[in-house]
Amino acid sequence: MADVGKLAERLRAALGARRVITDRQELRTYECDGLAHYKVIPALVALPADAGQTAAVVRACVDAGVPFVARGSGTGLSGGALPHADGVLIVTAQMRQIRAVDPADERAVVEPGVINLHVTRAATPHGYYYAPDPSSQQICSIGGNVAENSGGAHCLKYGFTTNHVTGLQVVTPDGEITRLGGRSLDPPGYDLLGAFVGSEGTLGVATEVTVRLTRLPEAVRTLLAAFHGTDEAGAATSAIIGAGVVPAAIEMMDALAIEAAEAAVACGYPQGAGAVLIVELDGPAAEVAAQFDEVTRLCEENGAFEIRIAADDAERALFWKGRKSAFAAVGRISPDYIVQDGVIPRTALPEVLRRIGDLATSHGVRVANVFHAGDGNLHPLVLFDDGVAGEAERAEAASGAIIDLCIEYGGSITGEHGVGADKAKYMPRMFTDDDLDTMQLVRCAFDPAGLANPGKVFPTPRLCGERPGRHRGAHPPQEAAEPGWQGAEVF
Amino acid sequence: MADVGKLAERLRAALGARRVITDRQELRTYECDGLAHYKVIPALVALPADAGQTAAVVRACVDAGVPFVARGSGTGLSGGALPHADGVLIVTAQMRQIRAVDPADERAVVEPGVINLHVTRAATPHGYYYAPDPSSQQICSIGGNVAENSGGAHCLKYGFTTNHVTGLQVVTPDGEITRLGGRSLDPPGYDLLGAFVGSEGTLGVATEVTVRLTRLPEAVRTLLAAFHGTDEAGAATSAIIGAGVVPAAIEMMDALAIEAAEAAVACGYPQGAGAVLIVELDGPAAEVAAQFDEVTRLCEENGAFEIRIAADDAERALFWKGRKSAFAAVGRISPDYIVQDGVIPRTALPEVLRRIGDLATSHGVRVANVFHAGDGNLHPLVLFDDGVAGEAERAEAASGAIIDLCIEYGGSITGEHGVGADKAKYMPRMFTDDDLDTMQLVRCAFDPAGLANPGKVFPTPRLCGERPGRHRGAHPPQEAAEPGWQGAEVF
Repeated sequence: MADVGKLAERLRAALGARRVITDRQELRTYECDGLAHYKVIPALVALPADAGQTAAVVRACVDAGVPFVARGSGTGLSGGALPHADGVLIVTAQMRQIRAVDPADERAVVEPGVINLHVTRAATPHGYYYAPDPSSQQICSIGGNVAENSGGAHCLKYGFTTNHVTGLQVVTPDGEITRLGGRSLDPPGYDLLGAFVGSEGTLGVATEVTVRLTRLPEAVRTLLAAFHGTDEAGAATSAIIGAGVVPAAIEMMDALAIEAAEAAVACGYPQGAGAVLIVELDGPAAEVAAQFDEVTRLCEENGAFEIRIAADDAERALFWKGRKSAFAAVGRISPDYIVQDGVIPRTALPEVLRRIGDLATSHGVRVANVFHAGDGNLHPLVLFDDGVAGEAERAEAASGAIIDLCIEYGGSITGEHGVGADKAKYMPRMFTDDDLDTMQLVRCAFDPAGLANPGKVFPTPRLCGERPGRHRGAHPPQEAAEPGWQGAEVF
Repeated sequence: MADVGKLAERLRAALGARRVITDRQELRTYECDGLAHYKVIPALVALPADAGQTAAVVRACVDAGVPFVARGSGTGLSGGALPHADGVLIVTAQMRQIRAVDPADERAVVEPGVINLHVTRAATPHGYYYAPDPSSQQICSIGGNVAENSGGAHCLKYGFTTNHVTGLQVVTPDGEITRLGGRSLDPPGYDLLGAFVGSEGTLGVATEVTVRLTRLPEAVRTLLAAFHGTDEAGAATSAIIGAGVVPAAIEMMDALAIEAAEAAVACGYPQGAGAVLIVELDGPAAEVAAQFDEVTRLCEENGAFEIRIAADDAERALFWKGRKSAFAAVGRISPDYIVQDGVIPRTALPEVLRRIGDLATSHGVRVANVFHAGDGNLHPLVLFDDGVAGEAERAEAASGAIIDLCIEYGGSITGEHGVGADKAKYMPRMFTDDDLDTMQLVRCAFDPAGLANPGKVFPTPRLCGERPGRHRGAHPPQEAAEPGWQGAEVF
């Protein structure tokens, strides 16, 4: 264990006293991120003002041999910013300047602590916005979005954070400042930008982010379709995508999620709905109008018993209010809940939702489903009461079983919340040893000392050196089978 | 120098005799790729049948300590597949099975030797196609496209190869078989898929490629607009993009390129044109119709003196015939030429084209311009006669000066042809030492022995080990300035 006092002294000299926190009460503020299930008080918090100070903190950590964890607004849901008790937490919240907005080249350059929604606010007067929209966009930071490759309801059409970041300035785990990517797409050399985005702080700390701005659409139209159950709503989702329409968003809520939303915000969704879809189209007015009629027809054909079309922005906001409040609203109908995050092939939606229902029954818990139906990104909310003995354990087991289900269907253990501290244990379920070894190669190249957010993403911490578990010559390499290509036309 | 006879023996045992070439005459077939400027006869050619055989070849090379270079159809234009005289050329052309086409999930799985256009042919009956369309698409291979992150005229709207590959099976430089990505977008862990695509064979050999299929558009409309000069055509291009229209393609040809195309294929472009634009819109019929009128208007407003609208597929093909034949057509008006490939910000098109004209004059050569105007990807053709003493040198100098110009304007040294053997020397002009060191970290992680396509992409071959040129503590890290943010609104 390093001498925290000495480290604090060095950091105060480099950053100034008010940028270094060692008071135990103040440190407690940073003990967890949005996943409050895990809590660890860091030894020290540093709040660097710029890339140079960030590099100074990282170099001090390397010299002292202590781990460091970067944190933006702390809204993450996988424990990616969970501190180490003997480590430094690097909080980027004070780097929050929007450095440039350039509509002609459709780019903005921002510091990592800038709030997601503030990029859009700066771009809107120019006719642009920043497309990725996590539910937490009013508070989450761009740096955190980069670390977690954050998504959002509208990423169905527009893609995740990785599709909107064209350049980064980063501090590498040995304390150097380097640039990945730039203003233009697809520069020569290795695309390490893509590897960095979503690396959850294990490859370094982003200190400047160049993002693509998206033109505000000419038209936006939103409908709310009520179905008797999730089977019909799932079928409608598949029919819409199958028809070649790519809505900006297709969101689904099941009966329990609707019940929670009504209890919390009285959103007035159609009575008796077993599931609702919110479908939003945006783009050129001519295209939106034509496709909107098609979406309406496909919802009707697949069993929608009521379809409401937002007449204006106010009504559109009301449709979204229920959806956006759903996570928090669950607190109205259950004392505790786990937010799960997994992905399945969209075509399997009805079947997987039925099996989630079966899992809920067999585990004796309730599960509410609120999710990005268009891209099969499930967010089951597993409800429980921590005051009832055994319920938390049953909820945890049900939540894990849902992830098993996602893997069984050839999906993913996380859609947009990241692996973090929470899901590292599942990684070997999704990747072969060879796959993980290849990732480890890159991690060790950037961070041979293993000090950049250790314990996150990867299942077993191991020392860098020889490629572990690699066979050579004695037996032929095994080909890792890729699951889930059932039903494909095979030649 | 390794014992080629022994290596050949080992490979014949592993692959079968007919998959190993050592005959000097046969080897000569492989002495260069599409950039015939450089020629090297490899020591040995291997034609593996599958991933297992490819891994066997790589392991044999590692054991013998000889370099290996992968080659698809050999149509590359940067010498990326240039062999080593004492090395093995791994030709993937015999891995050419389309393994699956799955329209429901919009994916196809193909072997690396599959021809680009054949993916589209297999997908078309299902209403889909493969979007990236290099001019060589009738002959180039998907594996080569992955190595070079190939583009094409329609990548303006649809993105480069990297936007269409969702999964790879690769043989790493130590002969292991691993998977990067999969069927779904954005899986957890590091996105090494993005780093591999465009790595030009320096991180391994792709042995299976999962690609995204794109729905065939409901409507396609194409126009040919004739302008008095490139200034007007460039302004029209900027106006179209600035209006928020994203055509499938905006291609420009200048007077000299038009002259060459007319001489070769008699495409019948408007008389007296100093520049033509081919603008193609695709998508939902309603959107295309509305935007087509807007594009026509913007061309007129920016000085188009004649606009032809393709009445049918035959006329559309005729518009494209001139464009697609232009490179080869230049042979009609000049005995020799260099195809250059660089990128500039689209808004700088008129200015840069004028300066290219000045460079041509000052170097005493002619330059024809045929290029992807929409994304600022220039393809200047520098004409010369190798029979005239000094002309080749002057053409080479002019071609290099054009790349300098691209860098000066904050652009890129290559848009879609790759760095290869040809442009490695320019990399330090585009990247700082720290940037290149970071790439080198990854290269060394994958290929510590430096046997995977050495001499390509990176300027100075160096041994893997300590991070070279990295400073520590003594002086503060220098921040690499990103060029070209002039004119942005700065806060």
